[in-house]
Amino acid sequence: MKPILEVAASFGIAEEDVELYGRYKSKLDPGLREKLRDRPDGKLVLVTAMNPTPAGEGKTLTTIGLAQSLNAIGAPTIAALREPSLGPCFGMKGGATGSNKAQLLPSEDINLHFTGDLHAITSAHNLLAAMLDNHIFHGNALQIDTNRILWKRALDMNDRSLRQIVVGLGEGNGSVHESGFMITTASEVMAVLCLSEDASDLKQRLGRMVVAYNMTGEAITAAQIGAVDAMTVLLKEAIKPNLVQTAEGTPAIVHGGPFANIAHGCSSVIGTKTVLKLAKIVVTEAGFGADLGAEKFFNIKCRQAGLKPDAAVLVVTVKALKYNGGAPKTGLDQPNLEALRAGLPNMKRHLENLRKFGVPVMVALNHFISDTEEEISLVKEECARLSVQVELSDVWAKGSEGGKEMATTLLGILQQDTARYVPLYTDDLDLKAKIETVVKEIYRGDGIKLSAKAAARMEELERQGFGRLPVCMAKTPYSFSDQVNLLGAPEGFTVQIKDVTLSAGAGFIVIHTGNIVTMPGLPKIPAAERIHLDEHGEVAGLL
Amino acid sequence: MKPILEVAASFGIAEEDVELYGRYKSKLDPGLREKLRDRPDGKLVLVTAMNPTPAGEGKTLTTIGLAQSLNAIGAPTIAALREPSLGPCFGMKGGATGSNKAQLLPSEDINLHFTGDLHAITSAHNLLAAMLDNHIFHGNALQIDTNRILWKRALDMNDRSLRQIVVGLGEGNGSVHESGFMITTASEVMAVLCLSEDASDLKQRLGRMVVAYNMTGEAITAAQIGAVDAMTVLLKEAIKPNLVQTAEGTPAIVHGGPFANIAHGCSSVIGTKTVLKLAKIVVTEAGFGADLGAEKFFNIKCRQAGLKPDAAVLVVTVKALKYNGGAPKTGLDQPNLEALRAGLPNMKRHLENLRKFGVPVMVALNHFISDTEEEISLVKEECARLSVQVELSDVWAKGSEGGKEMATTLLGILQQDTARYVPLYTDDLDLKAKIETVVKEIYRGDGIKLSAKAAARMEELERQGFGRLPVCMAKTPYSFSDQVNLLGAPEGFTVQIKDVTLSAGAGFIVIHTGNIVTMPGLPKIPAAERIHLDEHGEVAGLL
Repeated sequence: MKPILEVAASFGIAEEDVELYGRYKSKLDPGLREKLRDRPDGKLVLVTAMNPTPAGEGKTLTTIGLAQSLNAIGAPTIAALREPSLGPCFGMKGGATGSNKAQLLPSEDINLHFTGDLHAITSAHNLLAAMLDNHIFHGNALQIDTNRILWKRALDMNDRSLRQIVVGLGEGNGSVHESGFMITTASEVMAVLCLSEDASDLKQRLGRMVVAYNMTGEAITAAQIGAVDAMTVLLKEAIKPNLVQTAEGTPAIVHGGPFANIAHGCSSVIGTKTVLKLAKIVVTEAGFGADLGAEKFFNIKCRQAGLKPDAAVLVVTVKALKYNGGAPKTGLDQPNLEALRAGLPNMKRHLENLRKFGVPVMVALNHFISDTEEEISLVKEECARLSVQVELSDVWAKGSEGGKEMATTLLGILQQDTARYVPLYTDDLDLKAKIETVVKEIYRGDGIKLSAKAAARMEELERQGFGRLPVCMAKTPYSFSDQVNLLGAPEGFTVQIKDVTLSAGAGFIVIHTGNIVTMPGLPKIPAAERIHLDEHGEVAGLL
Repeated sequence: MKPILEVAASFGIAEEDVELYGRYKSKLDPGLREKLRDRPDGKLVLVTAMNPTPAGEGKTLTTIGLAQSLNAIGAPTIAALREPSLGPCFGMKGGATGSNKAQLLPSEDINLHFTGDLHAITSAHNLLAAMLDNHIFHGNALQIDTNRILWKRALDMNDRSLRQIVVGLGEGNGSVHESGFMITTASEVMAVLCLSEDASDLKQRLGRMVVAYNMTGEAITAAQIGAVDAMTVLLKEAIKPNLVQTAEGTPAIVHGGPFANIAHGCSSVIGTKTVLKLAKIVVTEAGFGADLGAEKFFNIKCRQAGLKPDAAVLVVTVKALKYNGGAPKTGLDQPNLEALRAGLPNMKRHLENLRKFGVPVMVALNHFISDTEEEISLVKEECARLSVQVELSDVWAKGSEGGKEMATTLLGILQQDTARYVPLYTDDLDLKAKIETVVKEIYRGDGIKLSAKAAARMEELERQGFGRLPVCMAKTPYSFSDQVNLLGAPEGFTVQIKDVTLSAGAGFIVIHTGNIVTMPGLPKIPAAERIHLDEHGEVAGLL
């Protein structure tokens, strides 16, 4: 690792604008953006993916590798990524920082407490919960209906026991009511922080969050609880973008990590906008496959922030194609041209979808050693047939060397300047029409079926003036449909809408197509059992 | 503020041993202690206090001021203090960093997230809770009795609604059982961190913590849950002492802050031992009055860590003397010689008590502008009568200038080298005898009355081999007795022991003399409502 000050200096960031957290982690001072205000923006590239296997297709890896490769061919590039949540590191997954020659450093620190952003969000979230219950305890002047408290609590931990709880038991401990914890990444505060333009916008958005209804059915906001200034104080460092480096010393902003189902799954607007002023190219990612991540990146993040993306890279793997073509999970490293061929329509549909947002696309075929020549050729042939450029990416094994063709092709696309970004729907469509647009245009379903609860809630939200907000779809990432086993490019399905919830601060309406778990549990043998400090005091077993 | 690297350098700490958290906050690398191993220790001075008014008597202020004054008269001194908890800052109190010319800097940062230690402790605590419930969920191989789960959850927030809860409701969310949250400072993990010698001792202690009983009544430890290595990983930065500075650039270790009732109320052993190698004098503090704080400092911290304190400074105020002499809370700034005289026995008893630990003592009379000449003279006369040196401390208004006499007197005491530290009781006394020793020798009560529950639990703990541990008294800080209104120097009372709990990792048995609240609530108008960022983006309303 280079000292982070040196990494910052390589893109002209002065020492005074960098706040050190040790030698290798830092935050960028808000004053930096002010200084750079009049500079032109660089090009913005989204890395997204086809529908994945349960192991994931390497979006983060490709984003990091692509940024390294672009620098290696002379295009000054910064990566903008989501920051990992601590809780899941102790459950099943092994961190969210890429790996091998395309990873963020220092990986362990980034996966653990990092610069404390998630802890700050946890504190701000729970302060609001405590003040809300405290308001009720001390007389309930706002006449909050304790049966309609929407605001729960948050913790950055996988703990299923906290999903559904009863609080306030015992004498003098407030009103007894149901509550529950979500993991911090699922907090609306996280989504708010990621979509805010600056500290002032953050405060406004926090204030708009609806936390409960009163006895006469009116929405009660965080501003009415009086928590917003103190929450802003708790978040004053968290809102500053984190700067770290990749394995090759490429600067990377790693800032914000909202859920990709009940939230929009993109890293912070502040981070993206800051580095667009510093780099020729900014490579960013969005959670899950393109049906969720890219759709929300375009329809929520870019719409709200006024960002104009210049290209999209679709990460495809031979394994995921075979998986979508019907190969069994356990046989994905066996040659299977038939399954591969059957899975190609999944890729095709994602490519068509991405083009609907007005951006040029290319395919990055993330290479695994189990891929055969024939399999790779078949993917390339299909891309040629679809008039989409495709390059093999071998950034895991080779770092920037393994991504030079991909970077060169992308640079060519960017130089043609063909992007004309347009969101998929306009603000003035009603909520039902917005959902139907996404379902028909992106998922390719026949339509939607609203539960009575969802229909009533949607009507209530439109009556209350929230109908102009974009929709944020909470859906399985494994299928275009809302059915986890409907792989490939399914057709003829109807999407069931079970519930609709409001994220007024984040500025979207969450559309629940199933029971989305916002607090993960631990598996039978959690990763926590193998994570330890080795004999040199270094973290082992985490990645 | 000086850059913290400069403050560190003034005591010979090299840049490589300092990990920066911004320009003004830092952690000391564990390697530093290794390098300094062969150096002789400096003198260790405890700052403690008489029984306080609800506003507190300025122990932290005096500790900071005294360290500054000692440096000013040429004795290289470092302060070792507790770190504040974030939760209470949003409730009633205004931080815990001293004030005016005797304060820690940067105060707001230290009072808020600081270097993340409390968040790390929260994470480690809750990981253990999650793994415990997860063990039960996945078959309960250890046969844990869900009615005897001792380990609850922790959050650094004042939230009365979380004191007593039911978790695990709903399908697939684990076993339904009672739980609750304590504030993070009350977590045994905090006490463990503060009493650990190093990372290896930390891990051993975490492993010994008893988290539940099984169906046959055997204790289940954190080690058996398999959480200990991962908890140690989560705490790997938190265990490093934080170095900041005072308003006059005196180095201060601010590290660890356990409750002073259900825990021992002292800053970290690691911090104390590190700076004993760097300074001629280390000034430290202990929570609450000397009946709790000093007793635990001597009987728990010094006993376990092998520390040999060289002197104690008793902080006394005219207000607290009058309060203990019967003056009403609202009239403490009115001259009242009669109440003052009636309160002097409180000071006298604390001085006698401190001498029982074999250390020389002096009185620091923390000066308020409402103090009259007559009142000050009366205190000085009483000290003369008791053959105890007393100096006026005016460090709040004047910084080191206001504490030079105090520092000079203390230096004189230290140079005489009369300390022969001895704990009040030996390890081999049984638990009941230990409690009686504290009650009779320190509180001066007639004896104790054990509840049936406490008696049974004590017997169980002795049977299980925990009888050699010291006792940690959980008692009101306002009275020598267990009755909050019995001020001054009460006699003839009996202390009621309601419950006895085990902190096997911290290495003490907690003796509950009443219902100790381990999760504070917020007041009707919480401080959170006035805390905000001002027009320059600075925190206002916190202190």
